[in-house]
Amino acid sequence: MFVRSIKGVDVAFKAESLQPIGAFKIRGAWHRLTALSEEAARRGVVAFSSGNHAQGVAWAARRLGIGATIVMPRDAPRAKREATLAMGAEVVDYDRASESREQIAARLAEARGATLVPSFDDPWIIEGQGTAALEAARQMIALGLGEPVHAVVPCGGGGLAAGTALALKEARITVVEPEGWDDMRRSLEASWIEPVAPNPPPTACDSLQTPLVSPLTFDVLSRRDATGVAVSEAEVRDAQRWAAEKLRLVVEPGGAVGLAALLAGKVTPEPGMFVILSGGNVDVSAYARAVAS
Amino acid sequence: MFVRSIKGVDVAFKAESLQPIGAFKIRGAWHRLTALSEEAARRGVVAFSSGNHAQGVAWAARRLGIGATIVMPRDAPRAKREATLAMGAEVVDYDRASESREQIAARLAEARGATLVPSFDDPWIIEGQGTAALEAARQMIALGLGEPVHAVVPCGGGGLAAGTALALKEARITVVEPEGWDDMRRSLEASWIEPVAPNPPPTACDSLQTPLVSPLTFDVLSRRDATGVAVSEAEVRDAQRWAAEKLRLVVEPGGAVGLAALLAGKVTPEPGMFVILSGGNVDVSAYARAVAS
Repeated sequence: MFVRSIKGVDVAFKAESLQPIGAFKIRGAWHRLTALSEEAARRGVVAFSSGNHAQGVAWAARRLGIGATIVMPRDAPRAKREATLAMGAEVVDYDRASESREQIAARLAEARGATLVPSFDDPWIIEGQGTAALEAARQMIALGLGEPVHAVVPCGGGGLAAGTALALKEARITVVEPEGWDDMRRSLEASWIEPVAPNPPPTACDSLQTPLVSPLTFDVLSRRDATGVAVSEAEVRDAQRWAAEKLRLVVEPGGAVGLAALLAGKVTPEPGMFVILSGGNVDVSAYARAVAS
Repeated sequence: MFVRSIKGVDVAFKAESLQPIGAFKIRGAWHRLTALSEEAARRGVVAFSSGNHAQGVAWAARRLGIGATIVMPRDAPRAKREATLAMGAEVVDYDRASESREQIAARLAEARGATLVPSFDDPWIIEGQGTAALEAARQMIALGLGEPVHAVVPCGGGGLAAGTALALKEARITVVEPEGWDDMRRSLEASWIEPVAPNPPPTACDSLQTPLVSPLTFDVLSRRDATGVAVSEAEVRDAQRWAAEKLRLVVEPGGAVGLAALLAGKVTPEPGMFVILSGGNVDVSAYARAVAS
């Protein structure tokens, strides 16, 4: 945990970018995989993801001796595919244009009797991600910052945000999304689930490009009166630059949205606030261009 | 502490870039300032540095309620000057071309009865820096990696390297310097102190540009049969890129030289090895250019 002053207020940062796979995703994956029966563990797990969730499942599966199959688009970044293979997972390709990864994963799971591990629409996954907030709370208390009163959390499908809401019953929750992908914000305002509008703008926040949140994550956040804000691409770059300079951390675009909201004045710093920096997996060249600009 | 596989061997990394001031320098400064008598503490401390040592002294002085004066070149980076002032230190300017910072600092200390805090030529400073290695050893044992057998340490004046040698009586010590600034390497080979040759090449490793090591640091390292290697500017950039991608850490050029030596094959990875990443204070634009190249 890191503490920095923003506009004169000490704000705590939970750097999930420093996890072994560079993101919080091992938390949910570990929690889900350790809850499998012996029989289910023997039959293995299947996940679909081209990003941090795939790494999380492969990482947990390897340590638990469970077979993992990851369904990945044929055009996924080579580095991510290689990292997944290096962790001992099997990778099954699909064609983004003509095939549905959900169907392929479901078919594989069915054929093998394997367990499908969703990236956020699952109570174990949500609970597991919430351990980031539990740890943050313990660390804030140890640092003399007191119980957290406000958590600022990046939101894709909402697993981390909903887990945070479950973990911290007294804290306010602000979810942060990239502009145009702020379906959780709009859903929370409308009190029903609204998908991302057709043709959303391009965003560097690849880890937050979720077209539709789940009833599970929405429900938890809605009952806790969570609210949302959206940040621009330029605000995300500013936050990545700030993190490099003040925290000496490489934070991926999607991991930096919470910090971006603070720096842009869209969320007001207050004592007892913590911000989750949810991941640090970047293409180094793209990262360098972003922080140079 | 982070562990990553390099050429199939698990190597531990001690990331001093994550210290509050972004470098290990608070260790020596803290150790020196807490050893002052009450009378000496009242009279304050003086240091000369345009870099991480200034931050370290200012940081420790503020926490201990001791007045600190930092002698800085008039053309020091604005960010460093402001960070030093923000920590409550007084900054005294000098002109690099016509004045000697050693003389100005000594005169100030004399006039005020203040204690001069050198950046490496001091037994307390060396001892304090060595706590990085003590911590690394404890963390390696906790992680099941065993006692450290080989420490790879960036070297400017040699405070951190000598502290490491004192802290770990059984480990081999390799010091790493930028090419052309590898006076410690040459000194250890020659068994006497050799200064940096006139007109050394430009280097991005600003924190390692020390023209002459001290008898203290040289003596400790020489008695421990430490050896040195030198790395090129391109090897340093490769290491900074690797640290961004694999560790999600921003490491300054001088902080990355140990890692650079490993990646370049100049030091062979072995079980029980740890590498100190000594600092992460960068000019973000220059950093972005380095990791993009």
